[in-house]
Amino acid sequence: MGNNLSNEKGVRQVKDNVIKLKELLRKAHEGVPLDILKKELKEALSGLNPFEVVLAEQELLKEGFTPQEIFKVCDIHVEMLRDSLLKVSLPYEVPVGHPLHDLISENEELLKDLEKLSVLSQALKGFGKKDEILEEIYSILKSLRDFKKHYRKLQALVFPYLERRGITAVPRVLWSKEDQAMLYLRNLLNEIEGLKASKDFSITALDEVVNKIAFLTREFTDIVFRESKILFPAIQLLFSEGEWVAIKESESDIGFYKVRPEAGVWKPSAEPIYPYQIRPEVSEEVLSKLPAEFRAVVESRGEFLDVYNPAEVKGRIKIGDGYLTLEELESLINALPVEISFIDANDRFVFYSKNKDKIFVRTKVEVGRPVEFCHPPRSVHIVKKIVEEFKAGKRDSADFWINMGGRLIYIKYLPVRSSEGKYLGTLEVVQDITDIKKIEGEKRLLD
Amino acid sequence: MGNNLSNEKGVRQVKDNVIKLKELLRKAHEGVPLDILKKELKEALSGLNPFEVVLAEQELLKEGFTPQEIFKVCDIHVEMLRDSLLKVSLPYEVPVGHPLHDLISENEELLKDLEKLSVLSQALKGFGKKDEILEEIYSILKSLRDFKKHYRKLQALVFPYLERRGITAVPRVLWSKEDQAMLYLRNLLNEIEGLKASKDFSITALDEVVNKIAFLTREFTDIVFRESKILFPAIQLLFSEGEWVAIKESESDIGFYKVRPEAGVWKPSAEPIYPYQIRPEVSEEVLSKLPAEFRAVVESRGEFLDVYNPAEVKGRIKIGDGYLTLEELESLINALPVEISFIDANDRFVFYSKNKDKIFVRTKVEVGRPVEFCHPPRSVHIVKKIVEEFKAGKRDSADFWINMGGRLIYIKYLPVRSSEGKYLGTLEVVQDITDIKKIEGEKRLLD
Repeated sequence: MGNNLSNEKGVRQVKDNVIKLKELLRKAHEGVPLDILKKELKEALSGLNPFEVVLAEQELLKEGFTPQEIFKVCDIHVEMLRDSLLKVSLPYEVPVGHPLHDLISENEELLKDLEKLSVLSQALKGFGKKDEILEEIYSILKSLRDFKKHYRKLQALVFPYLERRGITAVPRVLWSKEDQAMLYLRNLLNEIEGLKASKDFSITALDEVVNKIAFLTREFTDIVFRESKILFPAIQLLFSEGEWVAIKESESDIGFYKVRPEAGVWKPSAEPIYPYQIRPEVSEEVLSKLPAEFRAVVESRGEFLDVYNPAEVKGRIKIGDGYLTLEELESLINALPVEISFIDANDRFVFYSKNKDKIFVRTKVEVGRPVEFCHPPRSVHIVKKIVEEFKAGKRDSADFWINMGGRLIYIKYLPVRSSEGKYLGTLEVVQDITDIKKIEGEKRLLD
Repeated sequence: MGNNLSNEKGVRQVKDNVIKLKELLRKAHEGVPLDILKKELKEALSGLNPFEVVLAEQELLKEGFTPQEIFKVCDIHVEMLRDSLLKVSLPYEVPVGHPLHDLISENEELLKDLEKLSVLSQALKGFGKKDEILEEIYSILKSLRDFKKHYRKLQALVFPYLERRGITAVPRVLWSKEDQAMLYLRNLLNEIEGLKASKDFSITALDEVVNKIAFLTREFTDIVFRESKILFPAIQLLFSEGEWVAIKESESDIGFYKVRPEAGVWKPSAEPIYPYQIRPEVSEEVLSKLPAEFRAVVESRGEFLDVYNPAEVKGRIKIGDGYLTLEELESLINALPVEISFIDANDRFVFYSKNKDKIFVRTKVEVGRPVEFCHPPRSVHIVKKIVEEFKAGKRDSADFWINMGGRLIYIKYLPVRSSEGKYLGTLEVVQDITDIKKIEGEKRLLD
């Protein structure tokens, strides 16, 4: 279709469609509900390829339509893309509520925002108020930072299942691209903040913003393309229902980009399966259907299969979602940069951490002691009051800080409750915050 | 003896002894070693009661001896008190290295310092340089703060065994007095700091200091008296060797006041017994020997005996020195004001805390994942380097801080080592320090 542009007929067709779009947007402007115009808008858009849509939007802008009016076209355009661009490569239908469905919906939201950015970029070159348009660009870019949740879900929930199957290059490359895109976004935001602060709306400065938005858009859409054409088809083929159930369990801990999946719509029957529990074999049938990038890796992986099982290390017990030996657990608690003491629901002191160079020494001899005997008579009524308020659910912490030999010591009392909210005891956390108070600026892993 | 002062003979005797002391101190001043003079000094002192010693020291001061020279008299005087004041009430000999021996030695050190304070108080009323004498008083008072270690050992190691025997009033009263004395000391130090800062060496101001030192001295010696005459004889009778072994185990965690007990001198054969393991019965024989304050309580305690055993609560496992159920342990970790993640010695992510509103979300799906896959390719080499340095023992922490949506997030990597120093893994601790950075001044439990 792209070369239609070069001949008379193609150009005329684009023009006709733009005229049609204008007419429809004018109707929308006059109050005709979008639902009624949708069918015709889709018809007008269907005659255009993505590049032509950008040109058409540019045209509309020149004609005096506001970016906000053109955004309606963007939304409908992306809806139209849903079936073609986002799903066409998938071997099977994706049920609503399935984690893959959520991932696809997020990509759709991303594409809408990118198209809006494109419209606003064009507007920035036109006659509108630069500061207002830039503000709108800034606001969309800022909201895009939240797209890291989409990437995070891939990185934390999807990639581990690929790694266990010996497929490590594809996720590593994708993560790199995701990381670069988010970094580019962060720098671009800083740059725009600079322009806003200095009120520099010169053509040079704004041109650079426009170019960078174009670059960022290419980066983001490239990732959408890789996900849609390669990653998603492959994981739909490879992952069992139990794996998706495990992914579903955790996806809302990470969150979503502009998508609010309803709970309980997707009703799988399998139990969750975690990466260290999967069977990495790939059947001949699945293998034959895999995208080429995956097929080559799976065929050659052989000895690289990861067989480590965290639950099967000698002496390990299940703690929360993880696995630790008692030695690891104790040593980990003792290595904490805070001191902890715990009194149970019977008001008995039953546990303390053995940190190096303790601020408040606790001893074995005190284990089992009633809390009221652990404090000087002068302050015991206050400790009791705090504990009573924790028990009654009236309070969620009690904080104190004192000077001790030139160090500032922070003491925090916290109620400990079971996952059902039952009071299990009170935790005392003691921390030397002298050095923390001096921290300024940033010190990143890569500085 | 006190009324000897009122008759001619008594006064003459005191005078003779003071003349003798002066002569001996003059010899010391001229270089005769103290060891040679000790016997004669003791003889001169033995003719004086404690009050007369104070008068004698006052006399020496007037004669022009420096406080430092008179301190020698103090030391020898307290040594003489050791047998009479400190040990006379004990039913049995106390072996060197026994925790009770350490407690008695600390009291002796305290009495020496109090006697020095008394000499300096007298000097403050005389003709010496007020600022220098005040500085010396301040320095001794400052070192006295460390006497809280003596009290802490009683409060944390001795009292729990009494409480388990139903004896709670005596320890509570003692703790109150100890607490008051330390508080009085703290306020006095603040006051002297004020005088030093304002260079106010007026008679009124210094008189108040002298009076307060006298009050503090009375408070401290009153506690020494109660310990020596009541507490120590009682616990020597009541506590079994196993209990003293448990006390010995922990005493050096708390520390000592100017005493450095040699290890391995006392050689008990019993295994340590903790308070919740003791048999609270008191034999008729022991009962008959107990100080009256204790006998009455033991005879009437009956139903108040504490039988709670932290190890016997259903589902409890031993963690460090304490006891927790897995539910308590998990909930306690999740209640921490810091987020933790742990990779084991195989470089596998195997555990994370499930705090409310996590800054960095971790998921079940990641459990078992190699650490190199848990980070973006861009920074993985740095993470690996940190872990390698932890493994090699070349590094003890790696700290970073970043801004996230207006919050300052502190990220600390720490090596986790077994008690034998073996590398067990790396801990990541994440903390929002935005509010901590704003903390100023003090907020005490009793404010």
